[in-house]
Amino acid sequence: MKKTAAVIMYEGFQTQDAMGPIEVLGDLVDLIEIRCVSVQGGVVTTYQGVPVVTERMEDVPKPDIVVIPGGRSTFVVLEDAEFMSKVRAYVESAEYCLTVCTGALIPAAAGLLDGRPATTNKSVYEMVTPKFPAVQWQRKARWVKSGKYYTSSGVTAGIDMAFDFVKDVFGEEAAQASSYEMEYVIMSDPDNDPFWNCPQLKL
Amino acid sequence: MKKTAAVIMYEGFQTQDAMGPIEVLGDLVDLIEIRCVSVQGGVVTTYQGVPVVTERMEDVPKPDIVVIPGGRSTFVVLEDAEFMSKVRAYVESAEYCLTVCTGALIPAAAGLLDGRPATTNKSVYEMVTPKFPAVQWQRKARWVKSGKYYTSSGVTAGIDMAFDFVKDVFGEEAAQASSYEMEYVIMSDPDNDPFWNCPQLKL
Repeated sequence: MKKTAAVIMYEGFQTQDAMGPIEVLGDLVDLIEIRCVSVQGGVVTTYQGVPVVTERMEDVPKPDIVVIPGGRSTFVVLEDAEFMSKVRAYVESAEYCLTVCTGALIPAAAGLLDGRPATTNKSVYEMVTPKFPAVQWQRKARWVKSGKYYTSSGVTAGIDMAFDFVKDVFGEEAAQASSYEMEYVIMSDPDNDPFWNCPQLKL
Repeated sequence: MKKTAAVIMYEGFQTQDAMGPIEVLGDLVDLIEIRCVSVQGGVVTTYQGVPVVTERMEDVPKPDIVVIPGGRSTFVVLEDAEFMSKVRAYVESAEYCLTVCTGALIPAAAGLLDGRPATTNKSVYEMVTPKFPAVQWQRKARWVKSGKYYTSSGVTAGIDMAFDFVKDVFGEEAAQASSYEMEYVIMSDPDNDPFWNCPQLKL
């Protein structure tokens, strides 16, 4: 049976954070079905201006895989009690949770990453990680695996993480086929993080 | 004044082909406005299952930049006379045209790449390029520039091409800032094409 991957969207999320993993996972059309979801359903527009039609999370119950993108607006949804409570339940019931960029702050704020190693965007690393001190934040990491959680560094790191996830769950061959399809040179070493010490943004 | 980048969408286009350049260009929020367009307008769903709300092309007249993604369904729109005629006019009036993957076949079929060097997806290269013999197809190229046309190889090559376009039009600094933002290691040499000789798909 196909696995369902629900990608949680919210106003202003970073386009590529979601679309990178969607491309990698969604290329496996016989294995994974992509569903774009949000708390309210309806049209959700990315930071770069792409309006995506989403289903309500309750209409896509208990997905196998939950993907959480980041973006500047992550800081808005962290303050949204309904969003946080629904996402928390969604992630808890899922088999896997993949976060990209500041998307990691969402399970972190829900306490789901407490005591776990995890990573997030590097250009706001100094600003955001101290807010969640119970997480074992890893600065120099393209992505980090801990149990069912895969957390990646900023934006395109989500592509490399998604390939690693595919390798773990569906095998090396599936990942290889998808990398040819995408003509993508996979950064396969999670410790190879060229951006760990990049300039910090002031948001 | 901001430049308008219209991304031409059609049923079944490859998600990342469009979203890669959208991320790179759309990060320059003060310089570029992204508009998702299609011939009929309305919801257009990507191959990976992302439903995008598009505007009708005639409601976004004469964009400065036209972006054309590829995908398996490129071969469908090549046979669609209305699509081809509208896209041809759109591209002709634009300052720049960027194609990703099999997206290059669209201006090629319209005769717009006749006599120009160009490239396209490498896993279907042997199948598709002989159909348009007036184009000077370049097999070993991550992307190719020729006048106002930027054509890239498959899927993620569109990210590298978009960075080169940003560097050409908006300067090195804009490209650098965007690469930190995306935590992306740019493949900055257009001749470095690791996939030029990859296995050919039978579609």
